[in-house]
Amino acid sequence: MSRSTPAKIVLLVLDGLGGLPDPETGKTELETAKTPNLDALAASGVCGFSDPVGPGITPGSAPGHLALFGYDPVNSNIGRGVLEAVGIDFDLQPKDVAVRGNFCTVDEAGLISNRRAGRISTEKCAELCQLLDGLVINNVNIIVRPVRDHRFTAVFRGNGLSTGVSDSDPQQVGVAPNLITASSPADEKIARVANQFVAQAKLVLADHHPANMVLLRGFSQRPHFPTMADIYKLKPAAIASYPMYRGLARLVGMDVLEAGTSIEEEFRTLAQNYGDYDFFFVHVKGTDSAGEDGDFDRKVRTIEQVDRALPEITDLQPDVLVVTGDHSTPALLKAHSWHPVPVLLYSKWCRTDRVSEFSESACVQGGLGRFPATQIMPLAMANALKLTKFGA
Amino acid sequence: MSRSTPAKIVLLVLDGLGGLPDPETGKTELETAKTPNLDALAASGVCGFSDPVGPGITPGSAPGHLALFGYDPVNSNIGRGVLEAVGIDFDLQPKDVAVRGNFCTVDEAGLISNRRAGRISTEKCAELCQLLDGLVINNVNIIVRPVRDHRFTAVFRGNGLSTGVSDSDPQQVGVAPNLITASSPADEKIARVANQFVAQAKLVLADHHPANMVLLRGFSQRPHFPTMADIYKLKPAAIASYPMYRGLARLVGMDVLEAGTSIEEEFRTLAQNYGDYDFFFVHVKGTDSAGEDGDFDRKVRTIEQVDRALPEITDLQPDVLVVTGDHSTPALLKAHSWHPVPVLLYSKWCRTDRVSEFSESACVQGGLGRFPATQIMPLAMANALKLTKFGA
Repeated sequence: MSRSTPAKIVLLVLDGLGGLPDPETGKTELETAKTPNLDALAASGVCGFSDPVGPGITPGSAPGHLALFGYDPVNSNIGRGVLEAVGIDFDLQPKDVAVRGNFCTVDEAGLISNRRAGRISTEKCAELCQLLDGLVINNVNIIVRPVRDHRFTAVFRGNGLSTGVSDSDPQQVGVAPNLITASSPADEKIARVANQFVAQAKLVLADHHPANMVLLRGFSQRPHFPTMADIYKLKPAAIASYPMYRGLARLVGMDVLEAGTSIEEEFRTLAQNYGDYDFFFVHVKGTDSAGEDGDFDRKVRTIEQVDRALPEITDLQPDVLVVTGDHSTPALLKAHSWHPVPVLLYSKWCRTDRVSEFSESACVQGGLGRFPATQIMPLAMANALKLTKFGA
Repeated sequence: MSRSTPAKIVLLVLDGLGGLPDPETGKTELETAKTPNLDALAASGVCGFSDPVGPGITPGSAPGHLALFGYDPVNSNIGRGVLEAVGIDFDLQPKDVAVRGNFCTVDEAGLISNRRAGRISTEKCAELCQLLDGLVINNVNIIVRPVRDHRFTAVFRGNGLSTGVSDSDPQQVGVAPNLITASSPADEKIARVANQFVAQAKLVLADHHPANMVLLRGFSQRPHFPTMADIYKLKPAAIASYPMYRGLARLVGMDVLEAGTSIEEEFRTLAQNYGDYDFFFVHVKGTDSAGEDGDFDRKVRTIEQVDRALPEITDLQPDVLVVTGDHSTPALLKAHSWHPVPVLLYSKWCRTDRVSEFSESACVQGGLGRFPATQIMPLAMANALKLTKFGA
C-alpha cells in the first residue's frame, strides 16, 4: 500500500521523552520546559500517547525504536551485542557473535564495586580495548572495539558459534560476575570461549584499576529484517550521535549520516541533506541520559534546547513532522519506564485537536488518543499521502 | 519479566461497577454516589476505561474476572459448572463433568414459569439437593451440592464423560426445558446420562413446588491455567463472599481467605492478612446484584458503603491500589452490559491526570485512556516496580 512520492517525513525522537511530575510543582519535565515552538506545533498538529510495547511494559532502547520504525518490537528483538557492534560501523558477518561489554571495577574479593568503572573516558576505553583485541581462543578470533565511555563490543569470529548463553553481567554490584553458561549442548563452545576471554581480560586488566574487569551481556547474531525501503518505499536517513541508534537504523536499512554530537549539529545535518532523502530519523539522546541520571533540570534544559533549535527543522516545511520519544525516562525513576509517550504529529492533513501545548497532561486530551507506537509510521505515511486505499 | 518484591498490590473489584445515567438526573450510579474517598484517590491516581472482552461485548462474570487477572478472556473460557463446583470448595477431579443447576418452577404443561423457583432459600436448596444426590446412572455417579438460593451444582463422575452438549436451561420462561443434545458421537454418553438425571429429578421434585424442576447449563471440565504465581511471581489471595469468585480465584492459583459476607468484613480480612500476601483480589458483589435487580438506589448505596470502608484499605498504604469492575451492570438495563468499565489506579509512580472524581464522565478524561482489561495486571505490576525492562 506504500507509494513513493516527493513528500518528506521527519521523525524527531527525544529519547526517554515522557516523564513524571516533580512532587513540588506537579509538572513533568516536558511540562516544566518552556517550549514555545513545540507548543505552536502542537496547536496546529494533533497529539496523543503511544505505548512502545504495551501498557505496563518498560521498553529497552531497541524495542522502543523498532516500534517507532513500525516493526513489531516483540518479534523483532535484537541482541545488545549486535546493536553495539553495528553502532560503531563494525562490519558484522552473519556467523559472528557480538556481545556488549562494560569495563567495570571489582574489589580484592572479586566482587563488582562499580559496573561502569566510574565511567572511564572513551580514550581510556580505546586504550584498554587494544590490550584485549586480537586474542585467539580455540580458533575463535576475538575482536574488541571501544564504543563510548566504559562500553565496548567484543565480536567472536569462528566456526560453530551460537548465542544461547547467559550474561556474565549480573546487573548489580556487590556480587561477582556470573559464569557464562550454555543453555544447550550446542552452545557450549561459545560459553567456553567467552569464559576464557573473561579470565584473560581479568589478568590483562589487573593493574588498570578502576577498569580492572569486564562484564558481558547480550550475546547475539545479526537479524534479518525487511528494510524501510522494502516496506514503505522510502529513502530513509538517520541522524544520531549515539552509536546504538545509528546501528539500529542501519539494521532497518537507513543511510546513516554524519551527525556531529550536538542537537544543533544534528538539525543542521538534516537541513544539509534535506534534498537527498524523503524520511529522516533524528535522534536526541540527552533527554534520556538526563532522565537516567535523575537530573530533572538537565532533562528540562535539553527539551528547551530542542525547542530553540526546532525552527531549523520547521523552516524546511516537511510534509509530516512527528515529535515523540521511544519510551519514558522519568528523572524521578532514574530509569526507562512503562508510561505512555507523548506524540505530536503535524501535517497539513492531520485533523488538529484542541491541544495547544506539548505535554503529558495535554496529550491526554489529544486527537490521536492512546495507541501502539507501531502505528506512528502508518500515520506518518498516511499524512504524507504515501499510502493507497485498502480494498476496493 | 516479573520479579518478586515486597511491594503489595490490591485489586478491588466492584462487580458490575459501570452504569448508565438516570434519565432524570443525568448521572450514573457511580456519579450519584457520594464517594469522597474514591474521589480523593482518583485525584492522586490515574483513571481510564477498560474493555473486559472488547467494545460492544457484554462479558459474563468469568471472562470479566479472567481479564482482570490478566488472562485472555476469549481463550481462557471456563464453564459455568466448573465455576460453581470450585466455588463451593468441591474437589473437582480432572475427568469430572460439572454443571450449574437452577431449581425452577414448571407449570402443569411442563413450561417454565420461574427460572429460579422464586429464589428459594439456601436451606431449602440444601434439602432438595440431598434428595437428588447420589444417583447412579449408567455407572456414572452424580453428586449434587447446594450453592446458594436456588443454585446448585451437579458433578458427573465416571468414565468416558465429555462436555460437548447443549444446556437444558432455555434461559427464558414460557417454554419447556430443552432436551440436552450431543454435538458429536463422543458426547452421547453425557447427554444420555444428563437427560436421565433431569427426568429423575422431575419425578423426585414433583411435590416440591415451587422447586419442582431443574435447569442445567454449562457442562464443563476443569481447565488448566498457568497460575498467577507462575506468571507474576506473586503470592495472591482472594477475598470474596460469593462462591463463584472464590472458585475462579482458585483456578488461577489464589489462596482463598475466609471473607465473611459484608464489605466491612471483607476489608477487615484484607487488613488481617496483609502481611502474608503481596496481591489481594477483593470482590464486592453487591453492586452487580443491585444492578441486576434494576435497583439504582441500592447500587448507589453499595458504592457509598465501599467508599466509607475504603480507609481500611488505604490506611494499609498498598503500593498499588486498583479500583474497578469486571464489567458494567447498569440498573437501567437490569443486566451485565458492554459499556467500558471505570478504572482507577493509584501508585506513587502512576503519572496522575486531571481527573478529580471517580465517575464514568471523569474517566473519559483519564490518563489511562481506554484499554483492554487484560492490561490492568501488567499496569499494576509496573506501578509496583515488579516488571523488568523488555529488551536492551
